[in-house]
Amino acid sequence: MGFAFDASTEAPVAVNDAPPKTSDQTRASAVATAGKKKSRRVHQAATAESMAAKQRDISVSEFFAKNRHLLGFDNPRKALLTAIKEAVDNALDACEEAHILPTVTVFIESCPGSENKFRVTVKDNGPGIVSKQVPNIFARLLYGSKFHTLKMSRGQQGIGISAAGMYGLLTTGEPVEIITRTTPKKPAIHYHVQIDTMRNQPDVILDQECEFDLPTGTSVTITLEGRYQKGRQSVDEYLAQTAMANPHATIIFRTPDGNTVEYPRQTDELPFIPIEIKPHPYGVELGVLFKMARESSTKKLRDFLRQDFSRVSERLAEEICKKAKLSVNLKPEKLTLKEAEKLYESINSTKLVAPPTDCIGPIGEEKLIEGLKRVVEAEFYSSCTRKPAVYRGNPFIVEAALAFGCKNGNGNGNGNDEDKDPLMRLVRFANRVPLLYQQSACATYKAVLETNWRNYGLSQSKGALPAGSLLLMVHIASVWVPFTSESKEAVAHYPEIVKEIKLAIQECGRKLGIHVRRQKRIREEMVKRGYIETYLPHIGEALRDILSLKETQVQTLVEKLKVTLEHSRKL
Amino acid sequence: MGFAFDASTEAPVAVNDAPPKTSDQTRASAVATAGKKKSRRVHQAATAESMAAKQRDISVSEFFAKNRHLLGFDNPRKALLTAIKEAVDNALDACEEAHILPTVTVFIESCPGSENKFRVTVKDNGPGIVSKQVPNIFARLLYGSKFHTLKMSRGQQGIGISAAGMYGLLTTGEPVEIITRTTPKKPAIHYHVQIDTMRNQPDVILDQECEFDLPTGTSVTITLEGRYQKGRQSVDEYLAQTAMANPHATIIFRTPDGNTVEYPRQTDELPFIPIEIKPHPYGVELGVLFKMARESSTKKLRDFLRQDFSRVSERLAEEICKKAKLSVNLKPEKLTLKEAEKLYESINSTKLVAPPTDCIGPIGEEKLIEGLKRVVEAEFYSSCTRKPAVYRGNPFIVEAALAFGCKNGNGNGNGNDEDKDPLMRLVRFANRVPLLYQQSACATYKAVLETNWRNYGLSQSKGALPAGSLLLMVHIASVWVPFTSESKEAVAHYPEIVKEIKLAIQECGRKLGIHVRRQKRIREEMVKRGYIETYLPHIGEALRDILSLKETQVQTLVEKLKVTLEHSRKL
Repeated sequence: MGFAFDASTEAPVAVNDAPPKTSDQTRASAVATAGKKKSRRVHQAATAESMAAKQRDISVSEFFAKNRHLLGFDNPRKALLTAIKEAVDNALDACEEAHILPTVTVFIESCPGSENKFRVTVKDNGPGIVSKQVPNIFARLLYGSKFHTLKMSRGQQGIGISAAGMYGLLTTGEPVEIITRTTPKKPAIHYHVQIDTMRNQPDVILDQECEFDLPTGTSVTITLEGRYQKGRQSVDEYLAQTAMANPHATIIFRTPDGNTVEYPRQTDELPFIPIEIKPHPYGVELGVLFKMARESSTKKLRDFLRQDFSRVSERLAEEICKKAKLSVNLKPEKLTLKEAEKLYESINSTKLVAPPTDCIGPIGEEKLIEGLKRVVEAEFYSSCTRKPAVYRGNPFIVEAALAFGCKNGNGNGNGNDEDKDPLMRLVRFANRVPLLYQQSACATYKAVLETNWRNYGLSQSKGALPAGSLLLMVHIASVWVPFTSESKEAVAHYPEIVKEIKLAIQECGRKLGIHVRRQKRIREEMVKRGYIETYLPHIGEALRDILSLKETQVQTLVEKLKVTLEHSRKL
Repeated sequence: MGFAFDASTEAPVAVNDAPPKTSDQTRASAVATAGKKKSRRVHQAATAESMAAKQRDISVSEFFAKNRHLLGFDNPRKALLTAIKEAVDNALDACEEAHILPTVTVFIESCPGSENKFRVTVKDNGPGIVSKQVPNIFARLLYGSKFHTLKMSRGQQGIGISAAGMYGLLTTGEPVEIITRTTPKKPAIHYHVQIDTMRNQPDVILDQECEFDLPTGTSVTITLEGRYQKGRQSVDEYLAQTAMANPHATIIFRTPDGNTVEYPRQTDELPFIPIEIKPHPYGVELGVLFKMARESSTKKLRDFLRQDFSRVSERLAEEICKKAKLSVNLKPEKLTLKEAEKLYESINSTKLVAPPTDCIGPIGEEKLIEGLKRVVEAEFYSSCTRKPAVYRGNPFIVEAALAFGCKNGNGNGNGNDEDKDPLMRLVRFANRVPLLYQQSACATYKAVLETNWRNYGLSQSKGALPAGSLLLMVHIASVWVPFTSESKEAVAHYPEIVKEIKLAIQECGRKLGIHVRRQKRIREEMVKRGYIETYLPHIGEALRDILSLKETQVQTLVEKLKVTLEHSRKL
């Protein structure tokens, strides 16, 4: 299927001068048919009117179809991973919301006759999806339940799974197939839907009842152009890391070559279940505050502050109004911009408690190390879960865990020839989801680079990761993880977040430094002890000869000397 | 205005156990008012129905308001830059489309009484904007003329300027002010518009005629929260680099402290004016092909191929149809998915000429070096403009230019204490627009890291940029630059693009290597020559004494020796 030309080396294309013949012909005929003047084709200046004629709406699906690398569909291998990732994220979220221990099955089947066409199915035992929501959820961008909710979840944008379906449609023309069942009392329903990219609306192609082997749950199948390949940034690695961060989930994976990999549940305890919160006043900007007030369902300014925000008590609401010289009974919808400004200033000069943090949950220091141990065997582990912090009013928690002296390298080498001096391997998670791409764009990478690893006994070149057989895992949990793109591969450089990551790393690093220095001392000690063991008998013999001692006296002397010598140094 | 708590160090917030009291109170009252059961608040399992009730549409402006770091509005300093960048990009695009030599004025005024509030105005002498388009262009996301057009331009998404206006509205509540005039025969119009983020629609607040000091042109003013600071990644640097890549534009900049910086036009010649092209068949995927056929205005398959694509002649269209076993007279709108598959395979097994490249224009090798010379004084320059290449059917050109041995460092140091051993400074452009953020996420960065700079006589640590006093400039021009996010700060890692960048860098690098090695030889030579100059007279004296020569004989001998010695080595 390779293209028949290689433009970069031998394209017979003239640059910057008259268009070559083939092009001219095409154009001439195109112009003739379209009935336009030929002159439009060659550098005619635009006017405000000619430009206005071209201005129009861009549908959000058209936008993402053209920009699909923003969604993680840059190339076939990554596309396969992204589609699975979006479906698995949704499956885990749905199960946890319904307090069900998740069992997620991922199938990848090759399509006969086409080496780069795959059918991907992700099936879960979640609560199922209400029939009339299916088309919107799977074939409409920017539709979902998590965007308007302030609590930790894997999905947040209402884009992912519809984008995967859209990519499948664009590359194979096939619709998304969904089977879902919300109660054992009713049969499952079977849908075929596809997105109409011009309108960003779902087209329903099939809608009928069907059999399903689970009492409740959802199965989604996407046919797409992809490439299945193991190794770094593979589906295999993603599922392994997902299992590591989600010990409460069973994950079963059937590869295209017919193998089955199973990650059984490690614990029957559901993880921390986050609770939705209201926005914290400190995170709200003037324009947003103004808009919230005007759209509030409350009738009085005091109630608006108390009810539409977290951490504002009646007393604080009154204090804020008083400081802003506004009546507590002012109708929020009548607020003017000037009044909003005063309110904004008053809020930001009032002492408020940090936002509630029951909306986010860490993995925990112990579980982090357990997770690491499942991945690498190392001589030293450390971990750190920071206290919650806040960026733009959103609570977040950073955790880090470190494995040093990994046996068989840290997995950062390139497989065949063992890398003798590898750089640190960085493993990143956001809301328990592994991030496999765009490492160098991530706040974690920035934080690692800005940490002075020499302090902890490691070597580090300027502008590079530290060297050594170590693996660093960083987890960021937040009600709203600020990703650098819709594909959710890297965390944006908010200063508060970078700072917290650094603090978590430093905590792990300090423990590592103690270990590394102690190791170094032990090594030196061993060398010195070796000397003592080697030379002491000779000294004994020499002393015997000089002082004419008996054998027993020599032994006692040597023993004493050894103790004294070893005592004079600290281990 | 600083917040009254620092959650990261002393937040009195309980984690993971019962919600603290304040929160409970807020919740209880919120729940009472909303008339819902309190139990919903504490970990109640969701059902398919309760989840369905929360699923809803997300407006594209809500999405970007929450994700505004995707648009480049992460922090006040970057926000100021991004707003100006979007307005200047539009101004330059509009002037060039209308074949007008651009004169762009940028004003930043501090707002009295608020240290981080600014009024930013960007004024151009372009063709102006048709009155009825103004609200949509400035207060509606995903609206514009460039998205559906395949030719090189700075803007491409229909997001930028409306996003800047939205950020201004969110942070200050102020609308966007526009004055525009499309003809000297009519007065200018003055608009105040703001985006309704819930509907992604413009609200017009003011619409009246007014005075304007230019015959045609546009002036846009945004009031926003920002921070003005010189140095790296500043507005100053952005405008300096813009001037460097756009010698045909005059740029005038008034800073908030009342200074004026002017970059006068360097040439009265308009740059290469790109021509719009049709998509190339190789870049079109099955699903897209299927959709294009069904929506085509043509009546016959042959005409569809000829007219809706570039590089398909009548003969080729017939060949493609024949190979796909489809009639040339088939109605495109009747095409089935199966037929589209056959057509797709047939297209991709047919030899086609690379796409036309009059849609993109390079800066050019000479102009690149001129540009570099304006920025750094160096001992060596080289540049390379590659031939056009293609990714996903989109033509693109890569250019690179290099300055080595920069006097006063490469500008990569941290100002005060001169960095003795700086890393390379990388300066990136896409369609003549400087890219100041997200360097490490960019395809150019990847290409630089994957180039072996030791081959060219430089030192380079693993995973880091090469060290040395050098500056590398890379320009990517394309009909559609694949940025890693909507803020257009870094280019995605398409393999074709990374490859071309590497080839361009290698070309510059080879020339650099020759220079570096020659310099090294010259240095060694100088040392050796120094030895000769120093010792030859002594050898002369010694020979005179040994052989009893006359003074003139000694001089001749020394001269001959010197010539022989120097001749025996090559410079």
